[in-house]
Amino acid sequence: MASRIVHLELRPRGRGLLDFTEKVAAVVAAGELAEGLCTLFVRHTSASLVVQENADPTVQSDLERFFARLVPDGDRIFEHDAEGPDDMPAHVRAALTATSLGIPFAKKRLLLGTWQGIYLYEHRHAPHTREVVVHLG
Amino acid sequence: MASRIVHLELRPRGRGLLDFTEKVAAVVAAGELAEGLCTLFVRHTSASLVVQENADPTVQSDLERFFARLVPDGDRIFEHDAEGPDDMPAHVRAALTATSLGIPFAKKRLLLGTWQGIYLYEHRHAPHTREVVVHLG
Amino acid sequence: MASRIVHLELRPRGRGLLDFTEKVAAVVAAGELAEGLCTLFVRHTSASLVVQENADPTVQSDLERFFARLVPDGDRIFEHDAEGPDDMPAHVRAALTATSLGIPFAKKRLLLGTWQGIYLYEHRHAPHTREVVVHLG
Repeated sequence: MASRIVHLELRPRGRGLLDFTEKVAAVVAAGELAEGLCTLFVRHTSASLVVQENADPTVQSDLERFFARLVPDGDRIFEHDAEGPDDMPAHVRAALTATSLGIPFAKKRLLLGTWQGIYLYEHRHAPHTREVVVHLG
Repeated sequence: MASRIVHLELRPRGRGLLDFTEKVAAVVAAGELAEGLCTLFVRHTSASLVVQENADPTVQSDLERFFARLVPDGDRIFEHDAEGPDDMPAHVRAALTATSLGIPFAKKRLLLGTWQGIYLYEHRHAPHTREVVVHLG
Repeated sequence: MASRIVHLELRPRGRGLLDFTEKVAAVVAAGELAEGLCTLFVRHTSASLVVQENADPTVQSDLERFFARLVPDGDRIFEHDAEGPDDMPAHVRAALTATSLGIPFAKKRLLLGTWQGIYLYEHRHAPHTREVVVHLG
């Protein structure tokens, strides 16, 4: 039996969106189920998941500009800054976006819309290795 | 075997919340499983999903007023406006709410709380046809 | 067969985050499945779910301070205040965070990251009894 849980390791270069749609699609294609639910879970509180438009890269920079304004680095209302001025903002951004996503699949293909990509949203400026658990059921 | 994946087509008249609880409940009632998990996935990046209060309609207008202030149409920080001043705000609103929802069911009934309704949140002003995939597992 | 749906009752003392990771872990440990997906669903629209940093308690107070600024109690743009000035802000906060979460598990243990805890985010000031449905599949 092919495993129904796969751990993906992602290496964003720093803050911003990282498209990993193809990696998820490959897990689904390699799985034993033709039809089912693919659940993604990010094992961090400073990075999160978003499904976003995959056509125009300015969508990603605009999204980042919005969050940078909404949750400013070094905001004085934050007490928790053990890892720097982007520490607490990263946790807030994670709370505002998603920690898990459920995406149905059929014929071993994710049922994403035409313009949908799956992104890891890294909220820290420094590069981190991030882990996403993929469950097929 | 009744299908475990159903595609719902929704036709919001424009920006705002569209209650489609009954359509999801009908899919669950028609399914082969008495107990399980119902997952909803919206196949768009300009519309999203929210579970909200279903009793007082001012909750919906208040929610919309909040988002209109938080993510203003035509905000100058946005570069992406290929489809107009509500284009990028729609993507941001989608990132701030949900692309997928998981709702358990038992005895072929969704385990929603008394005051919970399932809504498509359309973020574009113009009417669009939206697709939500329902997975029962 | 052990039940695959368990109802948890949580009693937050008022607004803020309540860690209930251990209660979810106990449901998973007591279940019949060694590996699978644990889905949480909160049956309310004034409380929500977040996965957050479980080490430094200032993360929780900072998160609350952020939301209190973003969605102020008694904001004049809100019409819906049947239950008081924190009524509509509670619904908005719930829309901005999560109503459901999917967390894979293996060997009867949740695959949470080292620093991740599962929290009920109560948005009302008064104490309420809250129900979270846990589904194992």
